Amino acid sequence: MPIDRRVDAWATLAQKALPQRVLVALLRAFGDPNAVLNATRAQLRSIIPDSACDRVLAPVAADRIAATRAWLEVPGHEVIAWDDTDYPRALLDIGDAPLVLFHIGRRDLLNRTSIAIVGSRNATPQGIENARQFSAALADAGVTIVSGLALGIDAAAHEGALDRSGSTVAVIGTGPDRVYPARNRVLARAIAERGTLISEYPPGTPARKENFPRRNRLLSGLSRGVLVVEATTSSGSLITARLAGEQGRDVFAIPGSIHSPFSKGPHKLIREGAKLVETAEDVLAEIGLANPPRAATADESMEHVPDGPRLAALLEAIAHDPVDLDRLIERTHMRADELQAALTTLELDGLIAALPGGRWQRLDRPSRTRA
Amino acid sequence: MPIDRRVDAWATLAQKALPQRVLVALLRAFGDPNAVLNATRAQLRSIIPDSACDRVLAPVAADRIAATRAWLEVPGHEVIAWDDTDYPRALLDIGDAPLVLFHIGRRDLLNRTSIAIVGSRNATPQGIENARQFSAALADAGVTIVSGLALGIDAAAHEGALDRSGSTVAVIGTGPDRVYPARNRVLARAIAERGTLISEYPPGTPARKENFPRRNRLLSGLSRGVLVVEATTSSGSLITARLAGEQGRDVFAIPGSIHSPFSKGPHKLIREGAKLVETAEDVLAEIGLANPPRAATADESMEHVPDGPRLAALLEAIAHDPVDLDRLIERTHMRADELQAALTTLELDGLIAALPGGRWQRLDRPSRTRA
Repeated sequence: MPIDRRVDAWATLAQKALPQRVLVALLRAFGDPNAVLNATRAQLRSIIPDSACDRVLAPVAADRIAATRAWLEVPGHEVIAWDDTDYPRALLDIGDAPLVLFHIGRRDLLNRTSIAIVGSRNATPQGIENARQFSAALADAGVTIVSGLALGIDAAAHEGALDRSGSTVAVIGTGPDRVYPARNRVLARAIAERGTLISEYPPGTPARKENFPRRNRLLSGLSRGVLVVEATTSSGSLITARLAGEQGRDVFAIPGSIHSPFSKGPHKLIREGAKLVETAEDVLAEIGLANPPRAATADESMEHVPDGPRLAALLEAIAHDPVDLDRLIERTHMRADELQAALTTLELDGLIAALPGGRWQRLDRPSRTRA
Repeated sequence: MPIDRRVDAWATLAQKALPQRVLVALLRAFGDPNAVLNATRAQLRSIIPDSACDRVLAPVAADRIAATRAWLEVPGHEVIAWDDTDYPRALLDIGDAPLVLFHIGRRDLLNRTSIAIVGSRNATPQGIENARQFSAALADAGVTIVSGLALGIDAAAHEGALDRSGSTVAVIGTGPDRVYPARNRVLARAIAERGTLISEYPPGTPARKENFPRRNRLLSGLSRGVLVVEATTSSGSLITARLAGEQGRDVFAIPGSIHSPFSKGPHKLIREGAKLVETAEDVLAEIGLANPPRAATADESMEHVPDGPRLAALLEAIAHDPVDLDRLIERTHMRADELQAALTTLELDGLIAALPGGRWQRLDRPSRTRA
């Protein structure tokens, strides 16, 4: 793709990392980035403070411009600037929208109803499953899933949505030519092909610790709301949730065991006013995309048990913690031989697991969605 | 214990089941229940409506009076009426306080700072453990635990508090001479001996379905707040929580897995404004009995792991759902032999369980409280 002067000028101006208010003043005064870059100090001084003039007039290192040009030569690599009709309108009201986005993939995803799904990198397997499941159900409802391409919850969120109609947007904290962490390289490629990958950082920008929290404002900024799936109280996801609140976005959180450190983040958010959600439909209802989903409050876990109330009752009696046969007899009033037969059925269905010492434990499955 | 005329009159008047507003009017006019019972229709009519006069003048069946007298002859059995200094002051503002309480046990518990702990009869083992643990920690802090002597969460709440300084009050929905369910007979006896057992229903009143929801107003009425540990959305605990809200009491709820039907009740309450609590300290802080407990947000689950960060990291990697060895190697970057050794250590410590197929799963334990 040939790089036109317009794109070159936007990308060069973006390298100068000027505050939004300065950029707005300059573009309003000079009309376009090329004119800004060609302005004299005297012209600039009438618009912006001296210190900002220095920043505008300082030359951008040749290798950085070269890196951007080289990146733009690859088919499908684009710069989407403020004046582009595909620039995400949702970002324009967050106060510090990036001047340009370095973009690979589907432009149409940038202005769709979006939900950010975020959480801990080292989440629990159930958390990963929940992220994937909420993501797929929301994407099936046409919602675009925004996340940060981190390990754990982020990756699961992208994966859940990737082949659904809503698909997914990865907002990364490095230049668009880097994948961090490297383990997500295959996922990043899939997102670039079937979803959208964007960055506010120019090609060549390595993973810098300070860029990731800053990047988080774009996750929330692009979205109607942020869903925190699992997070410790020190997780960066809580930063994203805070930014979402400041930007007027909804915050959703999935509760969990009071004994899991990965539920302490969501619980903290709920205490602070985040909406507790149990299903993707809860999220859709909050953003006005579904009828209120809390209908007859049928016990959803029962859906998994085709063989009638006795097995359902047994499954309830087993619950999520180890329990032995005597206790189950006490709880269910079933005969030992009946009980053994029923336990085997449930085990074969993958609904419970046999533990050492003749104990049994129920295995969680994600709630089936009612989309 | 000899039954004095005063007690007899209160108990007889109580049998007439008059609305609080009628009783207040009568006692204000006549001074004491004996005078009320001896009033003529003409005297009554100047105070209360005709229909209420009928109720006051109708004789109480002799066998019911006899049952109450027989019950009162047992040492330790008492009637505590409105005019008794030990009558729970907290009940006086709920609008329909019982005229008398049939009471066995410690009078001093009736006017202590109390929290009601309620939940499902067929709760999960983790829910039972949580109820017991919250109850013990609150009772250690001097709080009296109120509950309804049902199976499951109620029983665990009573048990957790029974030998602690705050002890426990059972508010039952039958006459004080009945134990429902019968399986809680031993517990009821222990509560009568070391805690307090009360009922608004006269001796001889059997278990009637309609009396239990009505009884729930006393659970909340006696308490500063109601803690719902585990409850399905059809649990009577949600009635207690609603009554608590109407009575101006706090509602606390313990969150859990979105896949557990027993967490759907607490989640519903949290969505409706109940306070999400993770520890007994959270409850104490809300009722002003502790410093705000959410300090440095240390990962409490780590307390259980004495052998350093490697085991802690492994435990995090295992989490609450089944995981196999390959996945753990991927997550922890430990060598297979190191991993096997570490898994054995964790299993011996009871922190994880080996599942069929070479998989592993973490076992929850209650958070240690920081009282």
